[in-house]
Amino acid sequence: MRDLFHEELEQINLNLVALGEQIKVALDSATHALLTADLALAEKVIADDSLVDNTQHQLDAQTIDLMARQQPVASDLRALVTSLRMSADLERMGDMAHHIAKLARMRYPATAVPPELLLTIQEMGRVASKICEKATGIIKSRDTEAAKSLEKDDDEMDILHRKLFATLLDEKWAHGIETAIDMTLIGRYYERFADHAVSISRRVYYLVTGQYYSEE
Amino acid sequence: MRDLFHEELEQINLNLVALGEQIKVALDSATHALLTADLALAEKVIADDSLVDNTQHQLDAQTIDLMARQQPVASDLRALVTSLRMSADLERMGDMAHHIAKLARMRYPATAVPPELLLTIQEMGRVASKICEKATGIIKSRDTEAAKSLEKDDDEMDILHRKLFATLLDEKWAHGIETAIDMTLIGRYYERFADHAVSISRRVYYLVTGQYYSEE
Repeated sequence: MRDLFHEELEQINLNLVALGEQIKVALDSATHALLTADLALAEKVIADDSLVDNTQHQLDAQTIDLMARQQPVASDLRALVTSLRMSADLERMGDMAHHIAKLARMRYPATAVPPELLLTIQEMGRVASKICEKATGIIKSRDTEAAKSLEKDDDEMDILHRKLFATLLDEKWAHGIETAIDMTLIGRYYERFADHAVSISRRVYYLVTGQYYSEE
Repeated sequence: MRDLFHEELEQINLNLVALGEQIKVALDSATHALLTADLALAEKVIADDSLVDNTQHQLDAQTIDLMARQQPVASDLRALVTSLRMSADLERMGDMAHHIAKLARMRYPATAVPPELLLTIQEMGRVASKICEKATGIIKSRDTEAAKSLEKDDDEMDILHRKLFATLLDEKWAHGIETAIDMTLIGRYYERFADHAVSISRRVYYLVTGQYYSEE
């Protein structure tokens, strides 16, 4: 009985990892579509978002079903509750990729990002992608050191976010209010994407150690 | 055993309702602080956010503890899982109030909101407050008609959000980029606050009926 339970728990974990990989692809595509005004790619991310949502709903149903059938002991129950929370984080990360793609589509055939922000946004996309990949790896490995180190990657995102605002507020900014609004929202989407990945790594850390590291 | 379980489930529900009431107070205070540059009130909302987080953590611990001790049947288990999800929505709504208060504090002694947006933001605050109150009521009553009707209140929020953007993009806008960025973020906070309340009402609807109404 216990062995079957742990096999199913492992399967749920692998499904979470697969969801994380799916979301990294969505985020990378959304960033590429945004930076190059690639309409077809933006449309693909937008259409695929419902696949992400379906995957997540199935995963949650599987998790709740396992809870109901096996009536797990406290530590196993905590693992399942954590799985539900991580899948909610991943789903929300998918939403952020979706929002980025929608902005790329809205501004097509123009490129939404003005030249002086291309590098900053490209970097935000790169850091977000790295954080997503690491968080997915942490779900798989339960590596608590890797989980802690994700905070540093998130600091990188915060620096880029501040750089974005500095560019918008520079007196040389010549792209008007609409582009400033777009870039404010884009910055927020990447930042939130990274926040959810950090939240996943914190959940894994807590699950493994029973302690928080976020107050350090 | 079952009776004790349902007593505890009811207690969890009452604690969720209390959390919703606490968050309405935070949101109302944050809106007032934002519109009147009331520093002391902004500071209070910011300081109280950790109380909201503590309440939520205790509530979740209580919920998971009940799951572990009573090994509920499928329908009761779903109610507990839904409770965890609603508490996460409420916690996030608290974060939005916190963000609004932080912006009020950042711009003090100036008022963050320029005159021509005072009414729009006041309305967004009023609608957000009403939605929060209704969602809290729906947690208590499990009223599925009220749950469905929350979508209409959310439409009101969307209209206000578009009005906000129209003001920012009007050629008469004379408050520069920084204020436009502030108002873009503020608009997003109120919109997300309302989204989470709608998500609560959808969860209650699904819990009671076993069906979604969101695809209608």
